[in-house]
Amino acid sequence: MSGYSKITPELGAEILRAAGPECEIADPELLEAAATDATGMVRSPELVLSLKSAVQVSALMRLANKFVFPVTPRGAGTGLAGGSLAEHGGVVLRLDEMNEIIEIDPVNLTARVQPGAVLADLKAAAAEHGLFYPPDPASLNECTVGGTAATDAGGPACVKYGTTRQYVLGLTCVLPSGEIVECGSRTRKCVVGYDLARLMVGSEGTLGVITELTLRLVPMPRAASTRVAVFDDIFKATAAVSRIMNAGVTPSAVEFIDAKCLELIRDLLPFEGVKKGSALLILEADGMPGSVAEEMDVMESAAREAGAAHMLAADDEAERAGVWDMRRRVSLRIHENAAVYVPEDVAVPLDRVAELVDRLPVFEGYHGLTVYAFGHAGDGNVHLNVTADDASKEEDVEACVTGLLEYVLELGGTISGEHGVGLAKKRFLPLELSEESVRLQREIKRVFDPNNILNPGKVF
Amino acid sequence: MSGYSKITPELGAEILRAAGPECEIADPELLEAAATDATGMVRSPELVLSLKSAVQVSALMRLANKFVFPVTPRGAGTGLAGGSLAEHGGVVLRLDEMNEIIEIDPVNLTARVQPGAVLADLKAAAAEHGLFYPPDPASLNECTVGGTAATDAGGPACVKYGTTRQYVLGLTCVLPSGEIVECGSRTRKCVVGYDLARLMVGSEGTLGVITELTLRLVPMPRAASTRVAVFDDIFKATAAVSRIMNAGVTPSAVEFIDAKCLELIRDLLPFEGVKKGSALLILEADGMPGSVAEEMDVMESAAREAGAAHMLAADDEAERAGVWDMRRRVSLRIHENAAVYVPEDVAVPLDRVAELVDRLPVFEGYHGLTVYAFGHAGDGNVHLNVTADDASKEEDVEACVTGLLEYVLELGGTISGEHGVGLAKKRFLPLELSEESVRLQREIKRVFDPNNILNPGKVF
Repeated sequence: MSGYSKITPELGAEILRAAGPECEIADPELLEAAATDATGMVRSPELVLSLKSAVQVSALMRLANKFVFPVTPRGAGTGLAGGSLAEHGGVVLRLDEMNEIIEIDPVNLTARVQPGAVLADLKAAAAEHGLFYPPDPASLNECTVGGTAATDAGGPACVKYGTTRQYVLGLTCVLPSGEIVECGSRTRKCVVGYDLARLMVGSEGTLGVITELTLRLVPMPRAASTRVAVFDDIFKATAAVSRIMNAGVTPSAVEFIDAKCLELIRDLLPFEGVKKGSALLILEADGMPGSVAEEMDVMESAAREAGAAHMLAADDEAERAGVWDMRRRVSLRIHENAAVYVPEDVAVPLDRVAELVDRLPVFEGYHGLTVYAFGHAGDGNVHLNVTADDASKEEDVEACVTGLLEYVLELGGTISGEHGVGLAKKRFLPLELSEESVRLQREIKRVFDPNNILNPGKVF
Repeated sequence: MSGYSKITPELGAEILRAAGPECEIADPELLEAAATDATGMVRSPELVLSLKSAVQVSALMRLANKFVFPVTPRGAGTGLAGGSLAEHGGVVLRLDEMNEIIEIDPVNLTARVQPGAVLADLKAAAAEHGLFYPPDPASLNECTVGGTAATDAGGPACVKYGTTRQYVLGLTCVLPSGEIVECGSRTRKCVVGYDLARLMVGSEGTLGVITELTLRLVPMPRAASTRVAVFDDIFKATAAVSRIMNAGVTPSAVEFIDAKCLELIRDLLPFEGVKKGSALLILEADGMPGSVAEEMDVMESAAREAGAAHMLAADDEAERAGVWDMRRRVSLRIHENAAVYVPEDVAVPLDRVAELVDRLPVFEGYHGLTVYAFGHAGDGNVHLNVTADDASKEEDVEACVTGLLEYVLELGGTISGEHGVGLAKKRFLPLELSEESVRLQREIKRVFDPNNILNPGKVF
């Protein structure tokens, strides 16, 4: 038993009196959408609200604390770990209507945004001022900025620019108690007290509801250049990654696509006659025109020395867009082609990527499954997609995932480089973190949320 | 009364049995050094130990918890906020003998180091592999890497590269309980659980004793170029800063030196005939040779458009070293020339730097003091050095500092961009942070350190 209060009609009415009756979502389609996310898991809330201000969120949290019902905040539901699902029922709190891009400040190189702003909209608003907001998860056209902060979202650009954590200067959040607290600062540097802003980032909506963010922007790179390199096998490709990362340049993307993924996107390939078994790297440099050319020369040489069989230059915007479209379709096509599909997002030290990929056929053979590998090779962040062609193989998939994650930890890696823990990886957390680390984290959770009402059932 | 146990001869003997008798520091000069730091404040510990392993630190912390005596960890004592002073007596724990640079890994672009390693030694070890560790506080030839992590140290390079926080991937720390915990990861990305590694960074040694760090390195810039620009007054100089930061390039340094500081280093100036009242900017670009030239062109144009009266190029290593030596001597000479000297390190949004500097004469006139301003203009991080020529003016200095910090907060700034809170800014903390924020932070402290034995009396 969860011990939470049910949202009775009376309690529901009280919540709507506090938050405003216009906040209730009643459309059956929207209610269905609020019960699931990109994992496909379903957890049905008892009430779905769409709030529009920190004050409303505060009113909701005060009631949640008083009556002890769960509140699960939610952006666009594009998460791949189930972090926005109402595991214990209660209220799902939609933040997508708090979507204002309040200010782009070109002198201070900052943006102030509400949490429900779509990431692509923020990126576009910054671009209008010649500025760049780097985080670029695959869901960037749908996901919300608040969601990317809650999960410390990444993407291909991280290899040069770092993850969302590095761009959050400050934020306002509503604590489970209903208190509204400012964390961090509007300045580019601040070392006053503990780093609560960074503690919020990546806490998956379990410590507070983010209601505003101040983000750091950087100048828009003036030029970019992309190469698609084909290698006869994945080992040559991963060897090229090490060589490139050790060549004294900072690429703005080093993505890889293994042979199985490549077969799924063969129709989109910019090459003819690519041999079966080949693997791709997508290499990118951005910045000032002079350095882009210099850096790309270095990266191309490294790739050729590592045995690149073909190399395609994509320097104009349309060609580059084509390459990235191809890259982004990989996971979609894996998903379409599989009856069971589990997207993992492990990360290992760069020099262990080859070992990890090398071991995949052993896992595939043992469990009778297909494991697709692609992702952010330059960060050692490998998307392992464990799939089965038959829905009856769920248990095999489960066992394979467990084995893979254990192997990743043996390699000195982490079970999640991007997606977070949520529900999906909760049971694996103790494989990576010590008892003492988990104890500290649970106690931090208790400091923020003594009644465990905010996004309960997640992470630990 | 503090409620802490005194280190009686019996307790001292028990500590030495646990930690090892060779760990005691008995040399009177070293004992004296362990009672002070770069602030000049003095707090005498009862026992000074130099430990060499996490296991020893753990043994010490277990005893501290059992007998309830304070332990204050300490790197090189170069801090400017009193964070390493034994406010409540007890044990000062020197970590400078745990100074091994365990590994520079050129494939993974990481360093593993012990906390007592000197920052300059880490930078040199990385450089041997063509790698760069960017944080560069002025004390880099003395300060320890552990100290820079505890304080989230910055420096001129932050404007491009960010602070220490952005380079700590993972760390091992000994909790006040004596438990040894790993935080973060050895991978470039990790989103498993709360971000304890980042919580440790900047916590000023109050949550745990860092005993090992895994740090991210970047490729060594292949070229760098420096300019010293002279402006007729500080307002033209700060206007140039806004123009440069908004010009679509990312400088690797944008430092300013006001007219009063300039008089102190006039003998080191690379120019003849600089008018009284002038202010300097030091501009730097680094990276690939092509982009350095392009970026410096943009920065030079912006500076000239903002009215730079002279501009000196320092492109070879010796010239650049001369410029940086001049810059680093500023605070030293301020210190030498003042009877009372309080170094503040506020940060304001970039577009408020001019207002802040503009107001300084009002504070000077009112309190009868001299306030020197210099620092990291591109980060809005201004070192305000409040000085008096007469030791009897301590109270005026105090009042002036309070007024300045209040004004900085009015400008949307922070009371500390680099030095931290420690003892020196503890009383100002409530000016910046809300009650609720401080309450959360105190409770986090309690989670880690229920008996308040680790570096007590600091921050809050």
